[in-house]
This record gives sequence, structure tokens and C-alpha cells, in this order.
Amino acid sequence: MGSSTGKLFKVTNFGESHGVALGCIIENCPAGMELTEADIQPDLDRRKPGQSKITTQRKEEDQVKIVSGTFENKTIGSPITMLVYNGDQRGKDYTYFKDIYRPSHADYTYQQKYGFRSYVGGGRSSARATIGTVAAGSVAKKILSLKTSMKFAAYVSQVKDIKISDLYPLPEIDKLQQACEENMIRCPDQETARKMIELIEQTSKEGDSVGGIITLVIENVPAGLGNPVYDRLDALLAYAMMAIPAVKGVEIGSGFSSAQYKGSEHNDIFFNDKGAIHTRTNRSGGIQGGISNGENIVMNIAFKPTATLSIEQPTVNEKGEEVMLKVRGRHDPCVLPRAVPIVEAAAALVMVDQYLLNKLADIRNI
Amino acid sequence: MGSSTGKLFKVTNFGESHGVALGCIIENCPAGMELTEADIQPDLDRRKPGQSKITTQRKEEDQVKIVSGTFENKTIGSPITMLVYNGDQRGKDYTYFKDIYRPSHADYTYQQKYGFRSYVGGGRSSARATIGTVAAGSVAKKILSLKTSMKFAAYVSQVKDIKISDLYPLPEIDKLQQACEENMIRCPDQETARKMIELIEQTSKEGDSVGGIITLVIENVPAGLGNPVYDRLDALLAYAMMAIPAVKGVEIGSGFSSAQYKGSEHNDIFFNDKGAIHTRTNRSGGIQGGISNGENIVMNIAFKPTATLSIEQPTVNEKGEEVMLKVRGRHDPCVLPRAVPIVEAAAALVMVDQYLLNKLADIRNI
Amino acid sequence: MGSSTGKLFKVTNFGESHGVALGCIIENCPAGMELTEADIQPDLDRRKPGQSKITTQRKEEDQVKIVSGTFENKTIGSPITMLVYNGDQRGKDYTYFKDIYRPSHADYTYQQKYGFRSYVGGGRSSARATIGTVAAGSVAKKILSLKTSMKFAAYVSQVKDIKISDLYPLPEIDKLQQACEENMIRCPDQETARKMIELIEQTSKEGDSVGGIITLVIENVPAGLGNPVYDRLDALLAYAMMAIPAVKGVEIGSGFSSAQYKGSEHNDIFFNDKGAIHTRTNRSGGIQGGISNGENIVMNIAFKPTATLSIEQPTVNEKGEEVMLKVRGRHDPCVLPRAVPIVEAAAALVMVDQYLLNKLADIRNI
Amino acid sequence: MGSSTGKLFKVTNFGESHGVALGCIIENCPAGMELTEADIQPDLDRRKPGQSKITTQRKEEDQVKIVSGTFENKTIGSPITMLVYNGDQRGKDYTYFKDIYRPSHADYTYQQKYGFRSYVGGGRSSARATIGTVAAGSVAKKILSLKTSMKFAAYVSQVKDIKISDLYPLPEIDKLQQACEENMIRCPDQETARKMIELIEQTSKEGDSVGGIITLVIENVPAGLGNPVYDRLDALLAYAMMAIPAVKGVEIGSGFSSAQYKGSEHNDIFFNDKGAIHTRTNRSGGIQGGISNGENIVMNIAFKPTATLSIEQPTVNEKGEEVMLKVRGRHDPCVLPRAVPIVEAAAALVMVDQYLLNKLADIRNI
Repeated sequence: MGSSTGKLFKVTNFGESHGVALGCIIENCPAGMELTEADIQPDLDRRKPGQSKITTQRKEEDQVKIVSGTFENKTIGSPITMLVYNGDQRGKDYTYFKDIYRPSHADYTYQQKYGFRSYVGGGRSSARATIGTVAAGSVAKKILSLKTSMKFAAYVSQVKDIKISDLYPLPEIDKLQQACEENMIRCPDQETARKMIELIEQTSKEGDSVGGIITLVIENVPAGLGNPVYDRLDALLAYAMMAIPAVKGVEIGSGFSSAQYKGSEHNDIFFNDKGAIHTRTNRSGGIQGGISNGENIVMNIAFKPTATLSIEQPTVNEKGEEVMLKVRGRHDPCVLPRAVPIVEAAAALVMVDQYLLNKLADIRNI
Repeated sequence: MGSSTGKLFKVTNFGESHGVALGCIIENCPAGMELTEADIQPDLDRRKPGQSKITTQRKEEDQVKIVSGTFENKTIGSPITMLVYNGDQRGKDYTYFKDIYRPSHADYTYQQKYGFRSYVGGGRSSARATIGTVAAGSVAKKILSLKTSMKFAAYVSQVKDIKISDLYPLPEIDKLQQACEENMIRCPDQETARKMIELIEQTSKEGDSVGGIITLVIENVPAGLGNPVYDRLDALLAYAMMAIPAVKGVEIGSGFSSAQYKGSEHNDIFFNDKGAIHTRTNRSGGIQGGISNGENIVMNIAFKPTATLSIEQPTVNEKGEEVMLKVRGRHDPCVLPRAVPIVEAAAALVMVDQYLLNKLADIRNI
Repeated sequence: MGSSTGKLFKVTNFGESHGVALGCIIENCPAGMELTEADIQPDLDRRKPGQSKITTQRKEEDQVKIVSGTFENKTIGSPITMLVYNGDQRGKDYTYFKDIYRPSHADYTYQQKYGFRSYVGGGRSSARATIGTVAAGSVAKKILSLKTSMKFAAYVSQVKDIKISDLYPLPEIDKLQQACEENMIRCPDQETARKMIELIEQTSKEGDSVGGIITLVIENVPAGLGNPVYDRLDALLAYAMMAIPAVKGVEIGSGFSSAQYKGSEHNDIFFNDKGAIHTRTNRSGGIQGGISNGENIVMNIAFKPTATLSIEQPTVNEKGEEVMLKVRGRHDPCVLPRAVPIVEAAAALVMVDQYLLNKLADIRNI
Repeated sequence: MGSSTGKLFKVTNFGESHGVALGCIIENCPAGMELTEADIQPDLDRRKPGQSKITTQRKEEDQVKIVSGTFENKTIGSPITMLVYNGDQRGKDYTYFKDIYRPSHADYTYQQKYGFRSYVGGGRSSARATIGTVAAGSVAKKILSLKTSMKFAAYVSQVKDIKISDLYPLPEIDKLQQACEENMIRCPDQETARKMIELIEQTSKEGDSVGGIITLVIENVPAGLGNPVYDRLDALLAYAMMAIPAVKGVEIGSGFSSAQYKGSEHNDIFFNDKGAIHTRTNRSGGIQGGISNGENIVMNIAFKPTATLSIEQPTVNEKGEEVMLKVRGRHDPCVLPRAVPIVEAAAALVMVDQYLLNKLADIRNI
């Protein structure tokens, strides 16, 4: 009760930071779809460590291997198991942490829950567990690309106090994705990106870290995905985003600013747009009453600064003794550039699941 | 795949705004606990319409009836079914809406999904569906009160631009709850509450509506609840909150402000507090790595202004024709006072589920 | 974890023998299907007590009421809640049993599990809990009748040592059902039925009870329903049947006799039947490798004799004291006639669930 | 919706006969238990091909590798992934079958469902998928052995018409297991075993196959496992058994013979056995009202003869053309000896799941 997500397109995530392998199993992926490692690897490459000077220098190739669920490069309806073997297992780096609870990490809480933990690299609580999410997300995106026009783009819109300008004209989604991949931080506005990178480099030198905001856009969403109660599409997406390590806040459409509106200012007015029903504004963020309305889904996701610092910090050990902690070694001064593909993948898992389930909503379509 | 929530303590929600009855079934409630309608009714009374001049004047007694799962006023381990019959079923009020998609409501999206809907009172998409959540939440809170010291308090911290002052000293949780119940808006600071109520009354007269923010505090949370991957405690709470109608944003601990911090400022430093491990700050909001750390859980939940207005608005009908909509009748000018018990209930459902599951985490405790 | 069944078309069963009401909730029933109590009541009438002189004389009308999930007599995609209020609640009849564990009943095991139980009429362990199954089964059958040609017929093929003759030519399914309803025991062969009824009446006079076998036939099953691993169609059906009170054995196709065959005798040979692929024999019982092959599904379900007897029996009470038990009052001398609609309903729930899920198996059909 | 089983102790099974690897993931295994491959391998060895002259001669070492979920040889509460790589992948053996539907195999039904299949070695429908079940079963048995005195023993009680004699005195469970492992067929009565093996060898020479019956005994079952409705312990076991390839029938306690009893003969009378409550007979097979009563669980499971024969058989191909099929190569003339550990494992998965869930049944124990 924890490592699986999705109702029909179900993903079970496994693996620890320094275990043998990480990955996922996908259940109920439809049969007959072409699928090879080449469909998965590009997103994993966007997530992998060591991809630029502003990410952790841990060396991992993160090569994915499909070990079940396909035959002659096509899905056969059985569970798809994808493995990424851990390479750079410097277990010895971590003996120092064996008894120490790192501040704002999961060491203490994991120990409290299970009474036993892998102290190397965060064990199960490591962000390496997002490998399974990203791998499954690539399969989800492939299904959606075959069956719909849905497109996912996440980008870094803020790092600490450097924000993408309100005046920056957001390009169409394909160009947005392209613009993001042109810099290390994955912010489509190159000038802002430059400043963000500069800040991160400076912060890294100081042994410190910074947080920020990722904005997610999903385009061409068919109307009708989601549910009116509990499994509302926005609730499922909020869950998926908040389940990403370091996320502290999630908002959709007008989000927290909605609190300040009057209803007469906030309502999205429907109109007939050459035969199609659309809304003049999109404060709903593409979801009304828990169900997609066909407008773009737009969300902001807030990430705290990385908890791992090179700066010395006070903390306690397992015995409750107050000790000083000084982390040597590799970590991300800012998780956001690597979180971009994770946000997209997490969203894709929700969307494909609801897309498939929606096929069974109306008896006339069955 | 939509109307159930929880893994072990599972709640299935049913009912429509103007159907025969609404309510819920709880599966896997432990046997042998005293339970009668008197345990449930107080929270339903805090949620029910017509409770004050700033809520909708729809008249509903919302009396709960337990029809299964108890014997001689004790639970017997079988599903607990709770029913609230709809009383004030003015179906005729709604024929006017039959073909019209109300702006920022679920009429359009429900129709797109299911091809058929109850157009009276929002049907399944009505906030009356939260009755099942509140009823189940009272059972959840009872279990937790018997087995832990956990306490839940939600309060209105902002209505439009009127915020509870940073200088207001938040009282301890029992007094906080009491202070909230002393006014119609459920803001513990009586002076701020007065201003909020004034604003809502004014807005109501204008036929308009306002949004706001509810803050949730959970005290005395045992360390160890939640999971490291996917079903993280914060992710489950974010899902539960975002599943409440009108919610557009959720944050925990430092939330969106975390984006602006440096790691060295943001980390919660552990210390030995007379033998117990605590953190000096609580930017984590009581959850680290998806698992509770024993500090208070603190969340903010943003609500948009009610979509139903008395002011005339343009929209479209089922044929796609642009029409003007003028809603007569009863609605909440601000959903927040009635949402307070819903927020608490939604949180309690997550907490009791994770509390029970946590009993099976460590083999030494089994 | 116990009272729900089905993956997509999910049924949650609730209620106790002498509680306020029994029934079920169906989740994920497709929207837009006409549905009223008139679709449900006929099967409940076939199940209800007091329907003939060979069933218990407990008086219950077992009138079903749909309280959610429909609007203007059509499903709207939200959970369908169906209630049957208990009428003949002679709670006082049962105080005698309060402390006594009736032999081969669930009194002892329920108490061991939950530490507390409703001792009236078996409480949750009563066969009255099959009301929810039968009600849901009627909805399942309606969906299947609209979308497929599938037909369900169960009949009593054996009572104690009186078996339907191997020479009796089984009629086509519609006539089979009709023939069953022409007698109290629901055996299509009227002469055998007469003997069965005679035996039951004799047994009843002696204060004793008898067991027997129900045969289930499902016709016009589309090929492709089920799964290769775990949720095999035969495994799901075996679960559904064994979950009916008093069932002690389940077999499909050649069943237990398969143990005695050689492979060369047992294999079902495929042939081309005017363009369609069929098998010459049906020892598989319509399921191969866990998936339906388009032949009739044929199962036998063995029922033990009713545990409740008028004959005095030794047993123990809650204190462990050995006591004599003499049950006065009403009970079925043979559960089989009333179990026929339960078997059909339990099968229909499996079939509709797999039918719906199968729509998502092949990417070309999505 | 098919490859997972269990509610809390959840096992997801993956892999195909000639894919890269087979195995399983276990979710929610409690943390802190010692676990290495050495705990798993012995049962896999009892299941593996080529173990004796009466099993298939396919050469597979079936060495298990744990790739996640443990740290320093102890479970850490995260998903346990176990892999068995396929070695003897003679894919080329199977091109002959590419278009042919083998009689009483899953080729036809799999193709009907998914529209695409792995035709090598049965693909996903191969009995090799039971590797995941057996591996997970060993973990389940380990937990139960640490926390209870529960013991599992399955044995071959019948092969075609050779049955273990009613006069054979069944030894106590440890000796029963030992006696089974002293011969190739796993029948504890050595004389009967000799005859069974002789028959299988003769059948194998003829290119034919035989079926039989496996009896399962579970000893020292705590009272209270299971549920009164749907997820009854017997229903869950029936599902687990019927999900094993080649199983056509399942019975518990008196099973099919129960149909022939009178109630007064069939009821299990309770008595006080030196302070403990027991039943004088065990026609219930250890389960009453869906919940274990503390007596031994006893089940019979009927297996059909292997569908693969060396004898030529008529069948059809994908085009519907009638063709003759002659299978060269390796197959089991009788699946029973290798099915013994599968039956035990499948039962253990049900029992551990219900054991863990039962910890949460009574509020006094939480």
C-alpha cells in the first residue's frame, strides 16, 4: 500500500538507491503496441544524474532493460517489467551516515516506521525511485500519442526569486519543449535560464541549495477524463505531483490566487468557438468538477531546496545525541532540471489511466 | 474507480444532490467500537446548509442513519452504511438549467464524460457528496481519538484579501476549535472573523461570491505514518484536499514559499528535546520523505469563489447556443465555513488509513 | 478487504440478518442505461424466503429500493446504492443463541475474529447477505443482455442422492430456465424435481436437512474474457461460487473427473465449424488458459446440507461449556432452490467485470 | 487486472516462458525480516523442470535473484523484486506452432483476447509463470513460520485411477512432507508412489499424459482468518487453486461428497478439548462461515492431464484451417509432482495476507 499507482494502468515502483536495480512493472498496458527500450531511454536520460554541471555528479548510465511484457518488440498484454541496474554503488561513501538522521531527509521517519532502513543514498527514500515513474511515464505518453493528440510539457518557471517574466510569450507546446532542452535548467526563456543557472552555480559553490517552481502544461486533453468524487482529475494530479520528492505545494489554474477573486471575476465563461465549446479564460486550469473540459491543464508545483548540503549542520543520531553533520560528496544543488521529466511522467500516468477508464463511462461507447 | 478512497479503511461515497439519499460505506472499520449516530451528527451539523445567514438557505436536516455494520451500538467488523435522506428536493427549481452549462460548474464536463447527467442541483457533482466524507471522517476521528492523541483542527485563515494576522497568537488546538465555533465563518480570531463575515454579507447582497484559504493543523501525529514512494502521506493529503469541491491549491509546511528558500535556511534541524527527537522549525509541515515525523501537520488549502452567482452571466447550452444565465435561489456566497469540517474529515480518512496500515510495517510489532 | 468484489464493476455488499437494511453499492456501472427496481426485483423474488413450502418460512418481502446512481430511471455513472430493509426482525427469537456456538455455523469463527458479533440470525454471516449479490447480479445481467447474447442458467442437478438423469436431454437455455421455474426446487426435469421435493419435505419433517449440487451454464460467452495469470476466468468464478454460503466444492468442465482422463481423451479438439472455430468436446468448460473460448461455460457447485437443524445437537457456549442446542423456528431444509439465483448472480458479476475490462485489452480496439 | 493477487501482502507476477526473465514483486512485506535467496531457492528447486525422469526435460536452473527490497539481508518494507532469468530459450523450437492453436492450450483464447501473443512456449500462458507464485510463497511461509505455527503440506493423492489408500495412515505434517520428498511424484505412501511413477513412465512412452489430485493440508491455522462475505477464506483458497494451470476442480473438507450428507450427519460438533474448543469431525475442512476455526484446512485440487502430447492431434491454425499437430520435444507427462510446491505457495499467499489483515479486525488488538 504505497508503491503502486493507477487503477487500471497500474504501475508498481521498486528499488533502492544502492540496491541491485530499480524500475517498475506496468499492469494492463494494452497489447499490440510497439515498445522497445528506445521508447523509454530518452526520458530517463533527461532524468539521469551527471547530465550537466548543475546536477549531481553521481555517475549512472541508467540504461533501461525490458525483461517482460513484450514479444518481438510489441506489448502482449502481460505485465511490463523494466529494470535499471544501479552502477555507481559507492556504498562505502555512506557508512558515515549510518547512525545519523540528516535534517529534512527521510532517515528519521523511515527508521520510525520500519525500524530498519538502508542508510546508503537514502535507500528507498532516494529520488532514484523516480526512475520507475519516468520509465512508466514514457509508456503512458506513447499510448496517449497513438490514441490522442495529448502533449505534456513541464518547465522550470522559477528558481528561488528568479522567475520567468510574465511578459515572456509562452510558445506553442512543441517549441516550448524544444526551448527547454536548449539549456541545463529547462526554462524555455533563455535569458531567465541563464540567470537561474548562474544562481545555482553560485549556490553550489557555497555548499547550499535552492528550490523553485515547475509549471506543467498538458495540451489537447479530451474532455471527460476524471471523476466527480474523490478520484477527481485534479486530485489525482495533485497526488501524483506531491508524491515527487521535495514537492511542498501544488496548484491548478488560478491556484492560490483564486482565494482573492470574486466569483464574477473568476468564472470561466463558455462560448461557441466555431462550433466547439470553449471557455474565454482558463482559471479552472482545464478541469471542472474533477473532469477535464478540453482546455489546457496548467499546474504549478513548488519544490523545496535540496536537503543535502555541503555546509555543516547540527542534527541528532539514532541514540538521540546531538552531532554535527558534514556531507561530502555529490548532490544536486537544485532538483528542478531533473524533476522536469519526472513531473511530465507523473502526469502522463494519471492521464493514461483516466483516458483508458473513460472508455467505459458511457454505455453507448462500450 | 472514483468514488472510493482509502486502502484499508475504505470509504465508498454515494448519492446525488436531489436523489433519494447520500452517504457512504466504510469497509474494514475494526470491530468492537461503540458507534451511534450521535458520533456522526455533530460534524454533519457543522457542514449542513442553512446553519447561518452566510451559508445557503437550502433547508436540509441532514440527519444520518446507520443502516448496517453495528449491533447493540458497537461496530461488528462488517461494512458500516450511513444514509442521509435528501429532504428539500426542489427539483422543479432546476428545470431551467436542464440544457444550460453553468460557468465553472461540472455540467459540461459531466455531460462530456457520461453523455447523461442529473441536472438538478449539480447531481453527482454537487458538494452534497461531501456528506459521505464528513460522516466517514467522524468515524475515523473516533478511532484515532481512542487509539492516539491525534487532533484535527481546520480554520478559515483568509477570505478574499482579509487574512488572519501573522501577529495573531494561534491558541492550542482545543481552544482553536472552540474559538472557530464561536463565529459563523470559523476563523479563530474574532476580530478578523467579523470582517470576513461583513465582506461575505456584502458580497452576497451583490449576488457575487468570494474564495479564501483554510488552514489545517493535525496535532500529536505519531511518527511513522505514510510511505516513501507514491502513497506518501503528503501526497495522500494533497489528493484528499484537492478532491474537495472548489479547491484549487494545496501546500504543506513551507509550501509555495519553499521555492524561495536556500537549503541552509529551509532544513528543519533535529534536536534532543528532553529525550524526544524534535525539529527546531517545522518547514516540513510534519512530513519528511512521505512519512510523518511527529511534528504538527500544517497545510493550507485554497478555495475558489463559489461558481454559482445571482449575477447574470453569459454561457452556452447543450446545443452550443450562447445564452444568458440568471440563477435564482439559494447558494453559498462563500464555501469556506462549511468546508472546515470537510477538510478535517478528509484529513482524518487519510490519517486513520495510514495509522492502521502502519501497524503492519515492522515485523517486530506484528 | 472482504465485502467488495470485482475490479472495475465493483460491488460492495453490506448488511446483517437483523440489521436495518441489506444491499450493495455498484461502482463504475456505465452511464445511460435504463434501470429501475423492476430490473432487480424478479431475481430477489427468486431468492427470497417463504417462496414455497420447502424454503424457510421467515416472512420477508425483500423489496429493493435504488437510492442513488440513477436519474429519471437511467444510470448516471455514479455509485448505484440498492437497499432492502429487513422486515421480519424477530430479534427476540435469538437471545437463546446469544452465548451458544451453533455447530457448523459461523458463530464461533466470527467471535474469534472480531471479538464481538451480532448473534441474531447469524448477523453478518447470514445468507441474507446474498441479497446484495443478487441485486447487483441483476444489473450485471442487464448490461450483458444489452451488449452481448450471454445467458445464465443455473439449476439443481442433485439433492442428496437424487440426481438429474444423464439421459435427460438438457433443453436450450431459455427453456431450461423456464422448466426450472415450473417447480419449487428449480430442477428442469419435472420428474426428478418431484422426487427431490418429496425428499426435502420428508427431511424437513425429520428436523434434518440435505445438500446437493447446482449446475451453472453460461451461453454465448464471447471468446477473450479473463486473464492468463491469477485472475483467470475460472479462478474468478471459483472464488465467486465458493463465496456463496454452504458451498464446499466447485468444478468446471470435466472437473474432478479430469483427474482420471488421459490427455489424448481429454483434449478438446478444435475444428472449423462453418467459418467459426469451435471445439468438438467441451471438457474445458468454456475456459482455456484462464480465458473464455466461446464454448458454454459449465460448472458444478456442491452445497452442504443446511447447518441449522430442528434436531437437538450437542455443542459448546462462549464459556466453553458443553451444552445441548435445540433450534426452534424457521430455516431452509435445503438451500439449493434459493441458491439458484445466487449462483447466476455471482457468475454474472464476474462476467460483466471481465467483459468490461476486456474492452481495454487490445490497443486496436481502444 | 489479472497478474496481481492479495490485498495487503500483494504479489504481482510477471514474465513469459521464453522472455528475458520471470518473477514477482511483493508489496507490503513487513520490514526487518531476514531474507536471502536461500529462503526462496528450495521451493523453486522443487518446482523446476528436469528434476526427475517424470518431468519435462527442459533445462532451467531457475536461480532466483532478489534485486530490491532487502538491505544487508533483511527486508526494509519496500517492494521485494525477485527475478529468475530464462536460460534454455529454445525459441526456434516453437516457430512450428506460430500459427497453430494447440488443443486445450491457451493459444486460441490468448489470441482472441489480445490479438497478439508470444507463441513460444505458451508465452504468458506458460506454467513457468508459476515461478513468481512459488518465489512469493516462500516469503509468505517464512513470515508465517516466524509468527505462527502454521505448516503447509501438499501431496499427490491420486494419479489417474491410482489413489492413495483410505487405509494409509497419514503421518504428522513434518513426516508427511519428508515422505513426499522421498519419491519423484510426491506421494507420501511409497508403494502408491511407485505405482504412480510407473503409470506416468508408461504414459510418457505412449506420448500421452495423465491427470490427478493433489491434497493440501494446512496445520495450526489460527482461528479467525478470513471474512464472512466474498473474501471468505475458502473462496480465496479456491481462487488461488483454480488459478494454477490445469486445475479443473477444488473442494474443501467434505467437498463434493457434502451434497450427499444429511445435516445431522454433516455438522461438526464442537466440544471442549481440555479447555480448547475443537470439533469432533472436520467436514468443514477448517473453515466455517468463511473464517478459519483452528482445525486443519484440508482441500483437494483436481488437475487435468497435460494438454501437450507427443501423439498427433487434429486442430486448426490462425486462418481456421484444419491441420494436424505433432509436438516434438519436452513436456511433462503429468504436472502433479511439480504442482505440489505451487499448491503450497498459492495457499501460503492467501494465508499470510489474511493473517496480516486479521491483526486489524478487533479494535482491542490495535
